[in-house]
Amino acid sequence: MAFTTKASIANFGGRLLKLSHKSATTGTDMAVSVFLPAQALAGSRVPVLIYLSGLTCSPDNCSEKGFFQHGAARHGVALVWPDTSPRGLNLPGEKDSWDFGEAASFYVDAARDPWSANYRMESYLTQELPSLLFGGQAKAGFEGADSLDGGRVSITGHSMGGHGALTLYLKHPGMYRSVSAFAPIANPSQCPWGEKAFTGYLGEDREEWKKHDATELVKGWKGGDLKMLIDVGTGDNFYKQKQLLPENFEQAVKGAGLSGLTLRYQDGYDHSYFFMSSFSDDHVAHAAKYLNA
Amino acid sequence: MAFTTKASIANFGGRLLKLSHKSATTGTDMAVSVFLPAQALAGSRVPVLIYLSGLTCSPDNCSEKGFFQHGAARHGVALVWPDTSPRGLNLPGEKDSWDFGEAASFYVDAARDPWSANYRMESYLTQELPSLLFGGQAKAGFEGADSLDGGRVSITGHSMGGHGALTLYLKHPGMYRSVSAFAPIANPSQCPWGEKAFTGYLGEDREEWKKHDATELVKGWKGGDLKMLIDVGTGDNFYKQKQLLPENFEQAVKGAGLSGLTLRYQDGYDHSYFFMSSFSDDHVAHAAKYLNA
Repeated sequence: MAFTTKASIANFGGRLLKLSHKSATTGTDMAVSVFLPAQALAGSRVPVLIYLSGLTCSPDNCSEKGFFQHGAARHGVALVWPDTSPRGLNLPGEKDSWDFGEAASFYVDAARDPWSANYRMESYLTQELPSLLFGGQAKAGFEGADSLDGGRVSITGHSMGGHGALTLYLKHPGMYRSVSAFAPIANPSQCPWGEKAFTGYLGEDREEWKKHDATELVKGWKGGDLKMLIDVGTGDNFYKQKQLLPENFEQAVKGAGLSGLTLRYQDGYDHSYFFMSSFSDDHVAHAAKYLNA
Repeated sequence: MAFTTKASIANFGGRLLKLSHKSATTGTDMAVSVFLPAQALAGSRVPVLIYLSGLTCSPDNCSEKGFFQHGAARHGVALVWPDTSPRGLNLPGEKDSWDFGEAASFYVDAARDPWSANYRMESYLTQELPSLLFGGQAKAGFEGADSLDGGRVSITGHSMGGHGALTLYLKHPGMYRSVSAFAPIANPSQCPWGEKAFTGYLGEDREEWKKHDATELVKGWKGGDLKMLIDVGTGDNFYKQKQLLPENFEQAVKGAGLSGLTLRYQDGYDHSYFFMSSFSDDHVAHAAKYLNA
């Protein structure tokens, strides 16, 4: 039984599960939360929307304040909130910054010491976690696990998690049926957050960074229609400070002649969960359109 | 200008305002948050739903986690989240308990020292706060204040705030067009939370307590149809521990031959914001039915 159930909470007609498990990929215990809609509890197979959180967050922030459950209940979609990094390793420098190290993995497999042994979030999210979550109840060990349809998965995320969602989607064609993002770090090679994180996790070679940068990755996309929704608030200070750079991403999409990007600038919205809760229904509906097709 | 605007945040097509003001009633600065739906920002007069929070909470908890904005945006209703007590007085014993003193006013006008000078939350909520909020923009001093229709107000609340909503509604016929509550302390004279708070704020005379106990007050209700919605989760530990006693309230309503109480037991739900967010749409719709009639 891979998962320990720390809490099972009635929510929007379904249940919110707070789980933890030992990860062979990160070498740590990992927290993950799952929302099972009523349809899943009633025995139906339901598709899954994975949400990747932003800097400093745990699975709790979005499950408490994002209100993705409202749309997920309506569309019969399960939600999965993974954590933002391994925790508790006490690596040198791991807790020195809020934008690097613990809760700031940037969802890459780190290449540099001391991070490379444990900060393997891309492998964790694309291999180990789905294999445990979608392997059935006997293996997973939590109520309702049999209802999760690992063949129908989409991905979304916020800020650093928006970067994670876009890059995992673009790096793994066919793994996710659609993608969306709130205020994603869309061109990390060109912004202070990304430069710091990529230098620390990947090293100084900027060519290597391109493999983990949505704006660079989309130039080589061969997967057809992008099935991609992005919202950015025009009142977002990180947008104004050029940490997000959605214009660069949009230009790359246009330059590559790709279709299927809906990029919306939401007037006056900031970077907070108040922004996400206002539009999470739209993002769940976007995913459900492809998941339930 | 009564209010200082600490934050103005885009949310669900409207704006969430974090306000503070000097209260003559409590002798302190008081925090209050307001959600103005898009209809208000566009110049329409909108009705108001006041939400009273539970023990330990501030205006932030429910405005972040309660999801009332979703329904309020749809129905064109403004929301007001007052604080749960005066703060910063440093009265003896004020911070010794989580269920008495600061953030635990029980929404009464205290009669005992050292509380009676400042813990006057009933007067604050029924007189000073509406007079400031609904007195127009020149007086209130925050954007959109002119849109608040102080003649159309309903009230709701959670736990201690459910007690507050029910008792203020029953004590002040005609002040609120409807009432609802999540997991209210419905018979405080008969439960440990209420006995502690009423002894501390009101004294030992249990006859005096009846004036602040929904189950006692409803026996004398002459206001006609109750227009009252109450939700209680069957998985709520405080319900199981007989802190809430909705059965006593229901029995009093029946004994008085009153109509208009909808009391729902929600299977498996607990006492948390996950419970409220799941049903806040229903409570806003209940209020809107009377506010927009």
